[in-house]
Amino acid sequence: MKNDILLRALARQPTEYTPVWLMRQAGRYLPEYNATRAKAGSFLKLAKTPALATEVALQPLARFPLDAAILFSDILTVPDAMGLGLYFAEGEGPRFERPLRDEAAIMRLAAPDPTAELRYVLDAVRETRSALGGRVPLIGFSGSPYTLACYMIEGSGSNDWRAVKEMLYARPDLLHHILDVNARAVTDYLNAQIEAGAQVVMLFDTWGGSLTAAQYEEFSLSYMRRVLSEVHGAPRIVFTKGGGGWLESIAASGCDAAGLDWTVDAGDARRRVGNSVALQGNLDPAVLTAPPARVREQVRRVLDAFGSAPGHVFNLGHGISPHARVEAVEALVDEVRTYSTQLRARPS
Amino acid sequence: MKNDILLRALARQPTEYTPVWLMRQAGRYLPEYNATRAKAGSFLKLAKTPALATEVALQPLARFPLDAAILFSDILTVPDAMGLGLYFAEGEGPRFERPLRDEAAIMRLAAPDPTAELRYVLDAVRETRSALGGRVPLIGFSGSPYTLACYMIEGSGSNDWRAVKEMLYARPDLLHHILDVNARAVTDYLNAQIEAGAQVVMLFDTWGGSLTAAQYEEFSLSYMRRVLSEVHGAPRIVFTKGGGGWLESIAASGCDAAGLDWTVDAGDARRRVGNSVALQGNLDPAVLTAPPARVREQVRRVLDAFGSAPGHVFNLGHGISPHARVEAVEALVDEVRTYSTQLRARPS
Repeated sequence: MKNDILLRALARQPTEYTPVWLMRQAGRYLPEYNATRAKAGSFLKLAKTPALATEVALQPLARFPLDAAILFSDILTVPDAMGLGLYFAEGEGPRFERPLRDEAAIMRLAAPDPTAELRYVLDAVRETRSALGGRVPLIGFSGSPYTLACYMIEGSGSNDWRAVKEMLYARPDLLHHILDVNARAVTDYLNAQIEAGAQVVMLFDTWGGSLTAAQYEEFSLSYMRRVLSEVHGAPRIVFTKGGGGWLESIAASGCDAAGLDWTVDAGDARRRVGNSVALQGNLDPAVLTAPPARVREQVRRVLDAFGSAPGHVFNLGHGISPHARVEAVEALVDEVRTYSTQLRARPS
Repeated sequence: MKNDILLRALARQPTEYTPVWLMRQAGRYLPEYNATRAKAGSFLKLAKTPALATEVALQPLARFPLDAAILFSDILTVPDAMGLGLYFAEGEGPRFERPLRDEAAIMRLAAPDPTAELRYVLDAVRETRSALGGRVPLIGFSGSPYTLACYMIEGSGSNDWRAVKEMLYARPDLLHHILDVNARAVTDYLNAQIEAGAQVVMLFDTWGGSLTAAQYEEFSLSYMRRVLSEVHGAPRIVFTKGGGGWLESIAASGCDAAGLDWTVDAGDARRRVGNSVALQGNLDPAVLTAPPARVREQVRRVLDAFGSAPGHVFNLGHGISPHARVEAVEALVDEVRTYSTQLRARPS
């Protein structure tokens, strides 16, 4: 591999500079992405057509010297493959045509065979990996078992996840059954992505942060731990949005790296978990609508907070927004490289 | 006062049981509230008519043995009094007719005279206090300077507070000016509420948790600290939703009590801040759609986590939902009283 700096940072080895990639780096803030998406007709068509998914996965790398590519896909492909019917209403988040509304539907759930129902994802992994030609590593991913369950039960995004919480309190056995199937499915799926060529995998636990501390352990982290214990052959990143309070448990889950959202002070995070895992994050994505000079200033703050010890992967604290300015992203990537190189050169 | 247990708990004095009140305890989950609201025509008309505001503030006390009443009002009355035009679109959150869209509008902002533009609130405080007849204490409140600014700039609620963050990064001077006026206005407003009869006051910092740690200090907590240093004559509670990571700073802000959302483990919270402030919270509001037996079980968990040391005020970790079941609220209040009485009787 020409640039393995991400892999070295995830292994907490010294690197010449801090590697950087951005959650949702192939996305609507890029005009060329919007053009390909228009050609495909929809986000889902784009994600399900390996040649187009490969094309958009490589677009940000043509603009910015990023240190990783990420598979172009969605966090909810697994329940879609289970038959729930993923779709996107225009201008809204993901929805399922057939959310889990009764016990019978829940008991029928089965982990899909990734080489069958999710073959289009594995094809996209293979094609993207091949198109990268060893330039940078390719990251595969899935939603976490709990985050998948949120959408499967609620049928859409939610401010309060009322249907999920109703099940959690009234029928925890049903929720555990869903999570059990999801953990099996996500394990098989990530292992299949690694076999197809993914060199890093990441669990997006977008909604674990809506739980109490005890519920997070019982309904989200314990299932991620199970996935982590059975996914092998590539470093594994866990990101729980809103999970800053539980960082010690996340770091002890068996992951190689923990993602931090922007509300967490990176210096505090490092003090709390020591050198036990790499840390990924955590610039406020909202800074990408600011003038480039402000972006550079905020990037330096994040790098200063993490310090120059090995084991930091620069990223946003959440996915990039469609409103991000291309010149702001350019400033971000450039400043990470320049400033983190300087930091390492300083006598400490 | 017949029942001063809330005041004693806020002063971290021993109490016979743990006092309980619920954020938004007068609300849409109560049929009698919906009847009064229908009579008033709208939420805002209800809040702006002291006799009706008094009526609904007392409704939950007629059903449940709560240990406090809270003024029936809105967190956004201050910017409404500044002329921004608060309104509620049906089924949606608060909005402003004239959000702050340019520098000139921001520079024209002035702290309202609470005895003039907010007289209806002070009348409601007086009338509710009088109707309570010393039964339980009356809590007054306001949105925090930062939370007010969020709605004033954005014009409505938001998932990402994009307009606010744009100003924060590009023109922090303008945001500081708004916060400066808001801090003055909130100080005058809370002091006027206390003078009119409020026996406790609370700052609702609903959106401080969307900031980075450094920004929370600079744009939210520092202005709350200023308010707290000038509001006298009643215990002051600060609640930052999503602020669990910053609890030490909140406890050191000069407040008498810190509110905790449901994601925070109460035992951890107590270990982190010791006995320096009272703690309020923190049952997951979603539990109120569960069967009463489950509600009681979750109430006991929260009480166990806080322990029986003085200085706990039982509450939800966020406002009660319109979907809460009346029998669940009944079970909650009863279990807090029964179980916390038992806890104190146990040899420790």
